[in-house]
Amino acid sequence: MTDVLAAALHRAAAHQRRFETRFAAYFDSLTDPAAGGTLDAPPHGRFPARALALVRELSLRGGKRLRVALLHEAAALVTDRPVPGLDTAALGIELLHTHGLIHDDLIDGSAERRGGPSTHQTYREEFPDRPDTALALTVLAGDLAAFLAVRVLLAGDLPPDRALAMAAVAADAGADAVNGQLLDLERDFPPEPDTAFLHTVTEYKSTRYSILAPLRLGLLAAGADPAPHEAELRTYATALGTANQLHDDWLDLFGDPAALGKPLGTDLRSGRRSYLVRALLAAADPAELRTLHAALGAPDHDQDALAPIRRIARAHGIDRTLHDQAARHAHRAAALAAAWHERWRPEAAAFFTHLPAWSTTRDH
Amino acid sequence: MTDVLAAALHRAAAHQRRFETRFAAYFDSLTDPAAGGTLDAPPHGRFPARALALVRELSLRGGKRLRVALLHEAAALVTDRPVPGLDTAALGIELLHTHGLIHDDLIDGSAERRGGPSTHQTYREEFPDRPDTALALTVLAGDLAAFLAVRVLLAGDLPPDRALAMAAVAADAGADAVNGQLLDLERDFPPEPDTAFLHTVTEYKSTRYSILAPLRLGLLAAGADPAPHEAELRTYATALGTANQLHDDWLDLFGDPAALGKPLGTDLRSGRRSYLVRALLAAADPAELRTLHAALGAPDHDQDALAPIRRIARAHGIDRTLHDQAARHAHRAAALAAAWHERWRPEAAAFFTHLPAWSTTRDH
Repeated sequence: MTDVLAAALHRAAAHQRRFETRFAAYFDSLTDPAAGGTLDAPPHGRFPARALALVRELSLRGGKRLRVALLHEAAALVTDRPVPGLDTAALGIELLHTHGLIHDDLIDGSAERRGGPSTHQTYREEFPDRPDTALALTVLAGDLAAFLAVRVLLAGDLPPDRALAMAAVAADAGADAVNGQLLDLERDFPPEPDTAFLHTVTEYKSTRYSILAPLRLGLLAAGADPAPHEAELRTYATALGTANQLHDDWLDLFGDPAALGKPLGTDLRSGRRSYLVRALLAAADPAELRTLHAALGAPDHDQDALAPIRRIARAHGIDRTLHDQAARHAHRAAALAAAWHERWRPEAAAFFTHLPAWSTTRDH
Repeated sequence: MTDVLAAALHRAAAHQRRFETRFAAYFDSLTDPAAGGTLDAPPHGRFPARALALVRELSLRGGKRLRVALLHEAAALVTDRPVPGLDTAALGIELLHTHGLIHDDLIDGSAERRGGPSTHQTYREEFPDRPDTALALTVLAGDLAAFLAVRVLLAGDLPPDRALAMAAVAADAGADAVNGQLLDLERDFPPEPDTAFLHTVTEYKSTRYSILAPLRLGLLAAGADPAPHEAELRTYATALGTANQLHDDWLDLFGDPAALGKPLGTDLRSGRRSYLVRALLAAADPAELRTLHAALGAPDHDQDALAPIRRIARAHGIDRTLHDQAARHAHRAAALAAAWHERWRPEAAAFFTHLPAWSTTRDH
């Protein structure tokens, strides 16, 4: 790892540590009568408290908090002074993410998330004889996280026009992410999606909401108008997001399961038309296609079944092509941000310049 | 029907007619590039457009729009001039309702809603071999409606502090309704709920969001601060909401299916501990309890199976007791609003005074 990349990751880790404390305090405040912004919880019943506890648990079970780092660094592009609205924005965007994770895991039937059980899995274990109840509670826990996200964005002590603009960015990001999930489902239906379709899935499912929204929110919180920079921010977000997704798809076949913390081949098993799966289907000869189609959407195949798929990918150079494409997108993002040094504060510009290299070399 | 009640319903109908046109225009604007507030829809794919179309369809398939009438009349308590924020608030609160309906029907397994198929049912018919896809699309369509609700509340042309306060009321109402749905599920698990628990379900599941939130939003839109009137508004909302729910529960056994537009006994068939079901269980002797427990949660029993339940209810005077309770709550709401004549504009105060009588005499 280069020194500049290490420095960028060090900054991200500092944002993450600070945020974890803040996020736990936020959840404490929801149930503490002495705190402001308390959720007006029902005086009866255990289901509401349990749903809130599960939202809290999944929310605090971390992840890298890349969105939080992007948010803080976007503000740091324009100021080195403390920016009050950043904590609120970080809480809002991470709660929105919790909402998405809870519903996504329900939709995908995923039992695991962030090294623990998914919310749906927890409810299934609590109601082993009532799958409909487990489903219902999962839908509602996800909905609760969404409304908490909106509440927190509206309840900060920012000037009203700024709070309003930031909440609108988050609500748009929420709608975009839903459209991304819808496209994510559609790509596995005929006809086979082309690359443009997959780029649109990436754009809506993750780029806008995990990269572009934090950039906009960070600038807004710092009192800067993101509108004049909109085209450039979008280009940066799309390049970084596409690099990220290409690398994720590559890791699913060529990564190290120990570093990833989950088994390989999840895209293949679920029949998902990832960038990798699409490239395989486009390149394979008839015999290879038979192997691929037998593996696609077969939930039970084990890790050994991935060896022939890996051979097919290597035979057509797909492992290298995908990796090169990811690197190209990352390079494009880095080149854009390099020019930000002239206009914006150098430490933050350096962060945005060096982050893309990490997104295509990480092992998890 | 008394003249004063007829006048109140006439006012409500006028609000409804006006709103239907406005709601359709809102959906047109989402997909019209020439309109402001356009949803930035993906350039590819049919799933996002289909989800939006189903949100639109269910939203425009009416209902009485009582929330919209309450909103307009709350503003009319303090002014007789046009209030710009009311349309935005009405769109937001009705979109929030669409969100709730889509997820509720998924949770309850309801195939019908507002005289047509539920969103889940439509998707099940479109994907007969893919129940998981139908489920996923329904979850996402509901999520889309929630984010549309927030977007519309933030995007109006109100002063920012007012828009912010109104969006916060709506977000709180959204969180309250989710807690209400969670309690609604819990009441059907042991132990049998007591009346206080059922009142809490009513308060969270419908009163706060269908009555209290519109009252607050109407006052806010008109530039009045609802805070000094908070306790009184809550008492009115709780009394009217409880009367409404008691009457709904009564109609489920004693109503006219033709007027209701749906079969009777849905609470019994789903095993739901409504006010009526709770009263039946509390009053029944052992032989009657056997009859009740055989009917509760038995989805297949036909309309004839309700006759013995009706006899049990009448034998214990439950039909009358429930009706009297509803009337008492309605009377309490009316008495409160009658005093509003001294403080607020008389036409709107009359609306709030006479509306409760309707809520306990309606046949649907």
